[in-house]
Amino acid sequence: MKKSALILISLLFTLSLSSQGNKNLAELLGYPKDSKLLIIHADDMGLSHSVNMATIKAFDNKGITSGSIMVPCPWSPEIEVYAKDHPGMDVGIHLTLTAEWDLYKWGGITPADQISSLLDKDNYFFTSVEELGKSAKGIEAEKELRAQIDKAIASGVHPTHLDTHMGSVLANPELVKIYLGLSDIYHLPVLFPRTYLSWFPPEMAKSMQSKIFLLDNLFMLEPKMINGKWIDAYKKGIETLKPGLNEMIVHVAIDNDEMQAICKGHDDYGSSWRQKDLDLVSSPEFKDLLKANHIILIGWRQIRDLMNSKVAK
Amino acid sequence: MKKSALILISLLFTLSLSSQGNKNLAELLGYPKDSKLLIIHADDMGLSHSVNMATIKAFDNKGITSGSIMVPCPWSPEIEVYAKDHPGMDVGIHLTLTAEWDLYKWGGITPADQISSLLDKDNYFFTSVEELGKSAKGIEAEKELRAQIDKAIASGVHPTHLDTHMGSVLANPELVKIYLGLSDIYHLPVLFPRTYLSWFPPEMAKSMQSKIFLLDNLFMLEPKMINGKWIDAYKKGIETLKPGLNEMIVHVAIDNDEMQAICKGHDDYGSSWRQKDLDLVSSPEFKDLLKANHIILIGWRQIRDLMNSKVAK
Repeated sequence: MKKSALILISLLFTLSLSSQGNKNLAELLGYPKDSKLLIIHADDMGLSHSVNMATIKAFDNKGITSGSIMVPCPWSPEIEVYAKDHPGMDVGIHLTLTAEWDLYKWGGITPADQISSLLDKDNYFFTSVEELGKSAKGIEAEKELRAQIDKAIASGVHPTHLDTHMGSVLANPELVKIYLGLSDIYHLPVLFPRTYLSWFPPEMAKSMQSKIFLLDNLFMLEPKMINGKWIDAYKKGIETLKPGLNEMIVHVAIDNDEMQAICKGHDDYGSSWRQKDLDLVSSPEFKDLLKANHIILIGWRQIRDLMNSKVAK
Repeated sequence: MKKSALILISLLFTLSLSSQGNKNLAELLGYPKDSKLLIIHADDMGLSHSVNMATIKAFDNKGITSGSIMVPCPWSPEIEVYAKDHPGMDVGIHLTLTAEWDLYKWGGITPADQISSLLDKDNYFFTSVEELGKSAKGIEAEKELRAQIDKAIASGVHPTHLDTHMGSVLANPELVKIYLGLSDIYHLPVLFPRTYLSWFPPEMAKSMQSKIFLLDNLFMLEPKMINGKWIDAYKKGIETLKPGLNEMIVHVAIDNDEMQAICKGHDDYGSSWRQKDLDLVSSPEFKDLLKANHIILIGWRQIRDLMNSKVAK
């Protein structure tokens, strides 16, 4: 079957939620109907040794419940081996088609001449999602994204989900279709907030809504939210969580020479920022905040396993 | 002209030393005939941020006189930009066809499907020179090596010389020919100790001897030499230097989390080893040792410029 046909079929998705009667996701996972489910997710595993160490620390501290690997990055072998040796760790693939830092770059894992529409003149990924969106050919993007997932699996990782670095795979409608198609091909849930449905024609959005686990709310700290103590911006995010499936994305790293050099010239999501995120999720204050707001922490593994148990029916 | 012909012609070399009458290299550079010339050379620039910072520090301290960049490594863009902005820095290309660490890997900069004989199943370079030597096809190796030099030049680096990571380009006779050929193509001197001549048929060795700047002595610290203080092994090396062209290879790095993670499981040439090398070349004791032994420090730039001035004649 041609890949384009596969992509189309994949849009029909893997899971028919309607088969579950009137139970919502919380109930299907064994929680009360109006539970505020929250995945606390660390992006960018594999980006650097600093990020790898910080993510492992955050998992060990139970500060995060999930994370995802940037397979094309220099330090992915380290975290892939760690994930293989720690199969309980909830790890997905952070599908990567951009390389945003100035002096620390990476390209795809597919031979460069097979994915030239994704690469700049030095065969690195583009810096911005905009450049990617204008240049990317779907067939090349799909080849690279599948190679990233395949490589992680071959390394012994059992991915729990797919998500996307800087929203790479949301760069244009063709990439979005490919992204959703990968969910079907690999039997993995994808990060996809409900608000994104408005990008699609109403009929397609309706069909999607009934067939994938949509995030009801995605919270990620943005520079404009920072005013005063680090925890305060997160406090607002947590206190306004509603029942349903929520994800909070954090960026953790050890603020050291390596990370400072990678992020040089970029304060937003930079080295100091990431250390603050690590300190935050590891802190008793943050855990108290979750408890006070009756948050139920879950990971992507529970959703993947639920999804696949239903597929098997 | 076909590349194979170019390679052959390159073996005829660039420089006819015989045109210089009876002057030896020291005299051609303006020093007394029996001078003990020494290049103190830092390998592995670009390998990591730690190595980059240490090398810059060693240059600033005048602990080294030359260094070379591993272009395919993750941190090469950082040091290439630094070299571009510091054109006085004596920087060559550390031609790289191996990736020896366990969890921190790199492949070539040429599309992987064009250099498959140089790569393992994950498209990383082989770990050992032996594996490379058995598998490498000359045409693919030359394509990759030229791409490495071209990329550095395109980044604004003006290379002073070529040398080779782990002796990659000495892995088999075909690679040696390519290596020497690159000297001719790029008008750059190559690291080539006189003792290597014994690998070649006598006639060819004789011809080479008259046409390239051979190193009279190459000193690199080996594990078996270490016994007591770090400086003691180097002391022996320095005290036994003879008049002629000598190179001392050092491996400098900051002994930090990043470098320890790269070198995990490898004490030899590991993170602590490299910090000791950095401390050594920066120390007054080391500089006193050089002075006491009447060493004249030079860089590869002087040799390159001499070589090209003669070519122009």
